[in-house]
Amino acid sequence: MPDVDLPFSRQEYADRLTKVRASMEARGIEVLVAADPSNMSWLTGYDGWSFYTPQAVVVTHDGEPWWWGRRMDANGARRTVYMDEAQILDYSDDHVMSTERHAFGQLAGLLDGMGHGSARVGVELDNYYYSAAAHQHLCAGLPDAEVLDDTALVNWQRGVKSDRELEYMRRGARIVERMHARIRDIIQPGMRKCDLVAEIYATGISGTEEFGGDYPAFVPMMPTGADASAPHLTWDDKPLKVGEGTFFEIAGAYRRYQLPLCRTTFLGTPPDDMRRAEKAVLNGLDAGLAAARAGNRAKDVATDFYTTMEAAGFHKEGRCGYPIGISYPPDWGERTISFRTTDETVLQSGMTFHFMPGLWMDTWGLEITESIVITEDGPAEPLADVPRAIYVKG
Amino acid sequence: MPDVDLPFSRQEYADRLTKVRASMEARGIEVLVAADPSNMSWLTGYDGWSFYTPQAVVVTHDGEPWWWGRRMDANGARRTVYMDEAQILDYSDDHVMSTERHAFGQLAGLLDGMGHGSARVGVELDNYYYSAAAHQHLCAGLPDAEVLDDTALVNWQRGVKSDRELEYMRRGARIVERMHARIRDIIQPGMRKCDLVAEIYATGISGTEEFGGDYPAFVPMMPTGADASAPHLTWDDKPLKVGEGTFFEIAGAYRRYQLPLCRTTFLGTPPDDMRRAEKAVLNGLDAGLAAARAGNRAKDVATDFYTTMEAAGFHKEGRCGYPIGISYPPDWGERTISFRTTDETVLQSGMTFHFMPGLWMDTWGLEITESIVITEDGPAEPLADVPRAIYVKG
Repeated sequence: MPDVDLPFSRQEYADRLTKVRASMEARGIEVLVAADPSNMSWLTGYDGWSFYTPQAVVVTHDGEPWWWGRRMDANGARRTVYMDEAQILDYSDDHVMSTERHAFGQLAGLLDGMGHGSARVGVELDNYYYSAAAHQHLCAGLPDAEVLDDTALVNWQRGVKSDRELEYMRRGARIVERMHARIRDIIQPGMRKCDLVAEIYATGISGTEEFGGDYPAFVPMMPTGADASAPHLTWDDKPLKVGEGTFFEIAGAYRRYQLPLCRTTFLGTPPDDMRRAEKAVLNGLDAGLAAARAGNRAKDVATDFYTTMEAAGFHKEGRCGYPIGISYPPDWGERTISFRTTDETVLQSGMTFHFMPGLWMDTWGLEITESIVITEDGPAEPLADVPRAIYVKG
Repeated sequence: MPDVDLPFSRQEYADRLTKVRASMEARGIEVLVAADPSNMSWLTGYDGWSFYTPQAVVVTHDGEPWWWGRRMDANGARRTVYMDEAQILDYSDDHVMSTERHAFGQLAGLLDGMGHGSARVGVELDNYYYSAAAHQHLCAGLPDAEVLDDTALVNWQRGVKSDRELEYMRRGARIVERMHARIRDIIQPGMRKCDLVAEIYATGISGTEEFGGDYPAFVPMMPTGADASAPHLTWDDKPLKVGEGTFFEIAGAYRRYQLPLCRTTFLGTPPDDMRRAEKAVLNGLDAGLAAARAGNRAKDVATDFYTTMEAAGFHKEGRCGYPIGISYPPDWGERTISFRTTDETVLQSGMTFHFMPGLWMDTWGLEITESIVITEDGPAEPLADVPRAIYVKG
């Protein structure tokens, strides 16, 4: 096996496995099939852009986890996971883009061969990387097994971050600070958006002198003017114009840990209603940060934020935050808790969130957000330090 | 509705719809639910990084398609699709990351309300953006419907490219040429890989003076040295060293059309076996290009390539190419044909492929590839012009 530059100690991986097994035990799960690349990486260290073909980490109550995937990607597993060679399972290339055989059918055969043919098997039923076809083939290959939905079982164990994880996220914060500084330095009327995005990418990937950046789980989203009412547009090659606002939904990333942070710019003089909204959002952020403390509930953050916004005349619904940590495209959220007025989850020290209020109005959009960590006591700590205001130029 | 800068004429969208409906008709499909973002975009113009929440385009045999997705993304649909407001359907934000209600259950209700409660409904069963849970909720909400697997039904209609599509891919080719030229300009021992990737990104996104670049469906994959035996590793912040090869699996992109092209660099003097492999791959490429002509079959390209490689002493299996065109992460392949010795698909003029032989050996990897278009007669035309050799730097 080649030398592996593990991002975490073996003890940390062992601790994670213990937590996951306890959750499996509580649900009566004997075999867990985790196909979410974030979960695979968090459990084993596996890293690679190979999730476009079937792959998974298999956890039972004995021994080390198994990595399973395409044969050519087993070489990537050998270079990134902590487990021994015997724990690496693969399937041949004729399963790829085949209408005759499905890789998850092959996995079913492997599990059966390991003696799990009649086990209680947990799968991540609602995940990008576990398709409806994957599920049918796994179930068909394990006719005597009981296949149960364990979407987000692993994700829930990822909520409280270790010191090392927080260190990686603080590195992401240093990177996203530089990305926003670069935007402030160079944005100007007449600049093509694609050229601005090029600089954002270059800054984020180069990182700092001490450590380089990784790819964020989203591409930069940065709609301008009236397009900013549509939050998930990306960019084009049109020039930026005076009289238009743009929001930048971007993240710094370090070893797959994501640190999203949004800011809004305006070329010229922002309209009064946008300025009013800015004031409301800043007050709402303050209220939410104060509520985001250990022992409070996720809904407390949302309630205090929305109440502040309502008082300022802005009605907003939906959620205003979600947990963050390790992630792969297409989403940097942890997919568990929501800052929503109905979410009863108790906040714990070491949990990390993107507190993400967005206002998408008919003619403009405003995003000023913070990525935060819940502390032992006191309000949440913003991880990045970027001026919390609309950046106005010219 | 805002002004929409459609990438294609309304006539072209109408022609696409006609082709898809003919294929639906042949399969007896009354309602097609296409959740693949590439298919959604090809059918309607929709563009946005919103595929991390449920969304789809619905096609029946009457009228225009429907766009369906999260409420905040309906604003993005209004800005990118050709259809009227009445064709835009959405679901409320409390379906997002909810364990109580699933968006695909809501879609089932909408389809039922349109009178499709007992229709034959086609779904893309094996797609990242149609999870096992999505399928269960759609089926549960349409108990009297017959839900059938139509994975890749739309993809197959995308194979032969229009003149406008080829124009976009040629723009992608201009971009990827610049990306490789930039690598050749700046690569040197001691350079951190992340800094090289930063430049690759910046070059690809800036594009040319005439048109900007879009995001590729993969991030750059560029393993070095022995890591190059693992094809899907990304990058780190370690310095490049003398005596090591690196391959660059990258793409230029224009308005979501992807033009992948791989080249390999070596700092110092490449080992003899790598030079032998280079020669074999170049001969194999020539053989494959000659076989990649209208009327031949996909397997002919693979057979002629592998035969040439075998004659040179390199045994390789798997596939050595796949169709390309419009795409979103995590894959830039069209997911239909494979250059594989068993694929009987007849090649047609206007089809585009990434002819992608990769050699991933124990201590090095070599990728020299071409993106090609099948011509009326004669061998396939490479779309980009990048020196077809290992790039060696002192």
